[in-house]
Amino acid sequence: MFETLAKQAVADRRHIHENPELSGSEWETTKFIRERLESLNIEILDFEPPGVIGYIRGTKGGKTVALRADIDALPILEEGDKPYISKVKGVSHACGHDGHTAILLAAAEWFKKPGNEVEPNILFIFQSAEEITPSGADRLIKMGVLDGVDTIFGIHLWQSMEKGRMGLKAGAAMASVDDFEVRIQGSGGHGATPHETVDPIYIATHLIQAYQGIISRKLNPVHSGVLTVGKIEGGSTYNVIPDTAKLIGTIRALSVESVQTIQQQMVKITEGLCQTFGAKGHIDFIVGTPPLVNDPKEASFAETVIRKTFGEDRFQTVDAYMGAEDFSYYLQKKPGAFIFVGMNSEKSAFPHHHPKFDIDEDVFADAIELFTAIVTEYR
Amino acid sequence: MFETLAKQAVADRRHIHENPELSGSEWETTKFIRERLESLNIEILDFEPPGVIGYIRGTKGGKTVALRADIDALPILEEGDKPYISKVKGVSHACGHDGHTAILLAAAEWFKKPGNEVEPNILFIFQSAEEITPSGADRLIKMGVLDGVDTIFGIHLWQSMEKGRMGLKAGAAMASVDDFEVRIQGSGGHGATPHETVDPIYIATHLIQAYQGIISRKLNPVHSGVLTVGKIEGGSTYNVIPDTAKLIGTIRALSVESVQTIQQQMVKITEGLCQTFGAKGHIDFIVGTPPLVNDPKEASFAETVIRKTFGEDRFQTVDAYMGAEDFSYYLQKKPGAFIFVGMNSEKSAFPHHHPKFDIDEDVFADAIELFTAIVTEYR
Amino acid sequence: MFETLAKQAVADRRHIHENPELSGSEWETTKFIRERLESLNIEILDFEPPGVIGYIRGTKGGKTVALRADIDALPILEEGDKPYISKVKGVSHACGHDGHTAILLAAAEWFKKPGNEVEPNILFIFQSAEEITPSGADRLIKMGVLDGVDTIFGIHLWQSMEKGRMGLKAGAAMASVDDFEVRIQGSGGHGATPHETVDPIYIATHLIQAYQGIISRKLNPVHSGVLTVGKIEGGSTYNVIPDTAKLIGTIRALSVESVQTIQQQMVKITEGLCQTFGAKGHIDFIVGTPPLVNDPKEASFAETVIRKTFGEDRFQTVDAYMGAEDFSYYLQKKPGAFIFVGMNSEKSAFPHHHPKFDIDEDVFADAIELFTAIVTEYR
Amino acid sequence: MFETLAKQAVADRRHIHENPELSGSEWETTKFIRERLESLNIEILDFEPPGVIGYIRGTKGGKTVALRADIDALPILEEGDKPYISKVKGVSHACGHDGHTAILLAAAEWFKKPGNEVEPNILFIFQSAEEITPSGADRLIKMGVLDGVDTIFGIHLWQSMEKGRMGLKAGAAMASVDDFEVRIQGSGGHGATPHETVDPIYIATHLIQAYQGIISRKLNPVHSGVLTVGKIEGGSTYNVIPDTAKLIGTIRALSVESVQTIQQQMVKITEGLCQTFGAKGHIDFIVGTPPLVNDPKEASFAETVIRKTFGEDRFQTVDAYMGAEDFSYYLQKKPGAFIFVGMNSEKSAFPHHHPKFDIDEDVFADAIELFTAIVTEYR
Repeated sequence: MFETLAKQAVADRRHIHENPELSGSEWETTKFIRERLESLNIEILDFEPPGVIGYIRGTKGGKTVALRADIDALPILEEGDKPYISKVKGVSHACGHDGHTAILLAAAEWFKKPGNEVEPNILFIFQSAEEITPSGADRLIKMGVLDGVDTIFGIHLWQSMEKGRMGLKAGAAMASVDDFEVRIQGSGGHGATPHETVDPIYIATHLIQAYQGIISRKLNPVHSGVLTVGKIEGGSTYNVIPDTAKLIGTIRALSVESVQTIQQQMVKITEGLCQTFGAKGHIDFIVGTPPLVNDPKEASFAETVIRKTFGEDRFQTVDAYMGAEDFSYYLQKKPGAFIFVGMNSEKSAFPHHHPKFDIDEDVFADAIELFTAIVTEYR
Repeated sequence: MFETLAKQAVADRRHIHENPELSGSEWETTKFIRERLESLNIEILDFEPPGVIGYIRGTKGGKTVALRADIDALPILEEGDKPYISKVKGVSHACGHDGHTAILLAAAEWFKKPGNEVEPNILFIFQSAEEITPSGADRLIKMGVLDGVDTIFGIHLWQSMEKGRMGLKAGAAMASVDDFEVRIQGSGGHGATPHETVDPIYIATHLIQAYQGIISRKLNPVHSGVLTVGKIEGGSTYNVIPDTAKLIGTIRALSVESVQTIQQQMVKITEGLCQTFGAKGHIDFIVGTPPLVNDPKEASFAETVIRKTFGEDRFQTVDAYMGAEDFSYYLQKKPGAFIFVGMNSEKSAFPHHHPKFDIDEDVFADAIELFTAIVTEYR
Repeated sequence: MFETLAKQAVADRRHIHENPELSGSEWETTKFIRERLESLNIEILDFEPPGVIGYIRGTKGGKTVALRADIDALPILEEGDKPYISKVKGVSHACGHDGHTAILLAAAEWFKKPGNEVEPNILFIFQSAEEITPSGADRLIKMGVLDGVDTIFGIHLWQSMEKGRMGLKAGAAMASVDDFEVRIQGSGGHGATPHETVDPIYIATHLIQAYQGIISRKLNPVHSGVLTVGKIEGGSTYNVIPDTAKLIGTIRALSVESVQTIQQQMVKITEGLCQTFGAKGHIDFIVGTPPLVNDPKEASFAETVIRKTFGEDRFQTVDAYMGAEDFSYYLQKKPGAFIFVGMNSEKSAFPHHHPKFDIDEDVFADAIELFTAIVTEYR
Repeated sequence: MFETLAKQAVADRRHIHENPELSGSEWETTKFIRERLESLNIEILDFEPPGVIGYIRGTKGGKTVALRADIDALPILEEGDKPYISKVKGVSHACGHDGHTAILLAAAEWFKKPGNEVEPNILFIFQSAEEITPSGADRLIKMGVLDGVDTIFGIHLWQSMEKGRMGLKAGAAMASVDDFEVRIQGSGGHGATPHETVDPIYIATHLIQAYQGIISRKLNPVHSGVLTVGKIEGGSTYNVIPDTAKLIGTIRALSVESVQTIQQQMVKITEGLCQTFGAKGHIDFIVGTPPLVNDPKEASFAETVIRKTFGEDRFQTVDAYMGAEDFSYYLQKKPGAFIFVGMNSEKSAFPHHHPKFDIDEDVFADAIELFTAIVTEYR
């Protein structure tokens, strides 16, 4: 049964793969999903595209389970010689969202087969714009997509996890993202007379050194946080001390409290050190994705479903990972869990976002079944 | 007498000021000087232009005294409303070399007046390209301009010195210039996973901090040195740790030994710290101007001449200054001295290299007399 | 039943509390435990004291469950006016081991009551020297205490956890401890002439700054690690740069791999930076306690037992904690779990190791029952 | 003549050398000098001992020239086998003040010889306590020793200067000394939970790094300054973060302005950085000796006397030196100069303050003559 659905999913996935669309512009992908759902006679709820929301009323109703796939591609030039290689130069499904979409379509089909009716209502969220800020998940939530939803599940095909394994981490599992921009306003002058200047490059080195201490001394060591200065620039030539220097970078953490600690310390250090050295420091934060926190009960439920459906040894507890995923927005509002489906193999040998990234489609059948089992077992 | 010469010098200076030429391209200025010297019946030695070398044989000969003026302008857009404002957009005599040239021409004229003959031979060096590397002084020396010269003197109209004062510092008086370029080769990656990278921006902060210690802990404190990082750049965006970071900057010192100490320490730190942090550090030095060291005897002679010619209170001992001047090349080869002629006044109210810099031409008469007195008194 | 046992446990605990003994010298405590076990007709295995190993053969045998209590006190002067305050000046049970001992004695008594016989064999480990290095657990293991043991459980009365809650964290739950000593061999001299010296205090600041980067840049951010320099010393007076400086401190981590990463980086930085600055750096590590890693299955089993025995809401998942506990040695060898028993209340209002620390004895009954339930439920 | 006087001076010096007295306790030395001056029939002015002020009225009077010798020894255990080795264990004339005293006594004797009368009055200052704070020079000045004095000269036998040379540096020649004490008040705690503390050792490293930038970035590079942290201490054991850390050290500079710049920056950095990191920083300065600034005219006069008396090639210009000398107090009040008398030789092969330091007594005759020539030539 799931093998048959998987075949269709492979075909769908390859079609989507050949026709990738960037985040927020998934118009053809939206149309494709819509047509497939319509052909399955699945109701399509009225949400502004791109993206599609399908809906199947349950035999009993009452509870509503949401299943989510993200549908956008990346601005990466695909390499290699797959027969279904991207037809759009510089755009490709290098993260696997094509697979997520095809798998969720197949799961939707399963629920429409006679005998597969389930008690809860099911919402199929085909979400735009996972890869960018502003987040497509956040947009859908603001449009009310979670109204009446009781729980939500999503999957990610995962290249660094052994093929055959599925798993997740209860609690904080993926990181928040917040970016920052620091401006150090010193007072430039001749490189030969530093005492007549306030040297912003020199001050920048004190800031960056002190930022390290936020992670090493101020963050609870059993919590996780990263503060990376991704870019530094200041000055234009050998012998002139510039007026300003600028740092930009990113903050990652597994809890909102950790983000707050890091940001509060950055403000103190940026302003305090600059003032101490006679400069003026200013920091702006660019709010990004929140940390992804799996609900412990739903995580435990997903674990139980995996063990029961596929066998005890198929489940794997996963370490937290400092990458981000906008599924976190759903989990801020509703209980739920985000599950990794391992596919590391010769077929899937390159990491996500690599120009040669590919999916091992062998795992599709299990992934489809996972979605169906979650809904079937849900009480 | 000197007042009359000064009038001509003012006219000459304004002509040169209106027609500034960048370092190495002083073709019209060269022609103007040449014609003025020819009109004075002064012999012109055969040196490749730009620049002109005039020569007057002394009554006794034996000794040869060189007098030097620099003739180049700067790539600075002049501001203000002087009637003789630069006619060349973006180029101006913002350092006062127009004055130096005019004054030396006037001094040359004086020596040709009947009764002003002097014993030593006199070489009038109108030198190109003081403001840049490669240095015009260095070029002339390599062409043999100092062959047979016994001593050399130069002046600089000096905006930050009180008008009416003249002076100098015996020994090391102006700084050497050597530039540097540092490249830190790390290993980039995702900003969320710094442990999988070697972060060159982070390492750069350690280098710059350690460079401070060269000046504060490794240089003899009674010697002077400056190490300025004028520019830092690394990275391109918020969440990516780059492969490399780059620093460029300048080294100033008052002795060759200090330059060597600073450079040796920079090599040790750049290579050693980078290696310690798992990166590869490389530093290149760009050799510039040596320190300007006034010969103690000639400095003492110049002081005596100033006191005797203009009065005891007109002389002023000057602090060393970390700016550079390619007159230092001459002083590496021959004894001599470089004298500041103060002109700070309402007329000369902006610093050298400022778009509104101007000369106070009132000091020309004394400056001309200073050149003549030096030669006259020289034994 | 458990209330009656708890009454005896309170009496036992107060007796032990009044007569605290430092780690490795628990001779009277050993005697007391021994006599109590003998009075219960429990077999005492032949292990070298201090410490006592009791044994009850199970009805079925086959499996052996070990239960552990630690018995040592701390070199802390107790404050307050408890009627049972420590009679030994400067020594007190400020961590709660008196309670652990009394609770385990009571649990042992329970198993000897008619009708409470259980299938597995039970080992009662009353362990010396938890608070110090070398560890009493390590000593017992080397003497063979775990031979034939299938699983091991221990508890800690926990002041910072809500009274009434019990819980644990699966996986890495408490930190390893490894200490370090760094010696920087510079070359001293007069404070006025730093350029003639290699200043070890200045170098020490570079080391400590670079150590921060190990945590912030080199440790996987989803792992936990702490590097604390607890003591720095160098120099003796104002104007002399000393020959050497010394740092000592501690490393904490939740995995052996993290400890290795931290130590390898410390070696690289200590040796590399010192060499770069012309000094000689040496670092020694003092191996301490490994991280405490609860077996996921046994942790899950313990959770189930708690939920079933005391009610669903009594269980609490616990964050990892960077403190150490030598129960970790047992868990390196055998599956098992270490459970926190919350007792935060007015009666237990001061943190562990505080001079006014006290136990809330109200939780004894549940703690005794927890030990018995674990063994009873064990399969 | 001077050879004869030198013989007596050698005898005197050896007597003083055998009987060294620490700064402020030079009672026997005072008595010895007093008796020698009385035996020469030299008037002794009424100043509170230790130390002696002798006086010879000039033939013309009007001008008064002061000559100064310092008389104190050091708390250094002398090594070696000189026949006249110190008889006081742990105290020795390891700086050469015994020589200064003997030379000035001999010079005084010269002026009393028939035919050696000079026009100006002469003050012979045998000063106590040069080596310590509070300074003996400062004490004498406050007692009025410079009232009526027109100029003052002193010498230092100088081991690192070639024997036969004499010299000095006009202007700032020796450094000021000011000590400092920094206290960082953080908030201690367990080494495993740095986020609950404010770690003063970590903050200390930021302070010391930032102090380097005062010298490298904030002090005019043509001025000289040293900031040395001579001692750091904080913490007591491996795993406890202490509440406080303490730094002490010394500041050296060649001008009062430089001292002020350094101190103002230290206050800003100490307070500002500590506050930024959540601690409280406090710095105290312990005022010491001011910089020694030779009057340019008197320095020039001394140079002329040396060249004229001993020959042109005997004079040597000296670099500034960051060591201190309380002769600077006199020069704050009166014009004068401090002259180095070279004695580097096999006889004087160890540096000042070395346990094996010795004087080359061969230079005594010239040193005596130098004092007499200065007064004789003085107008």
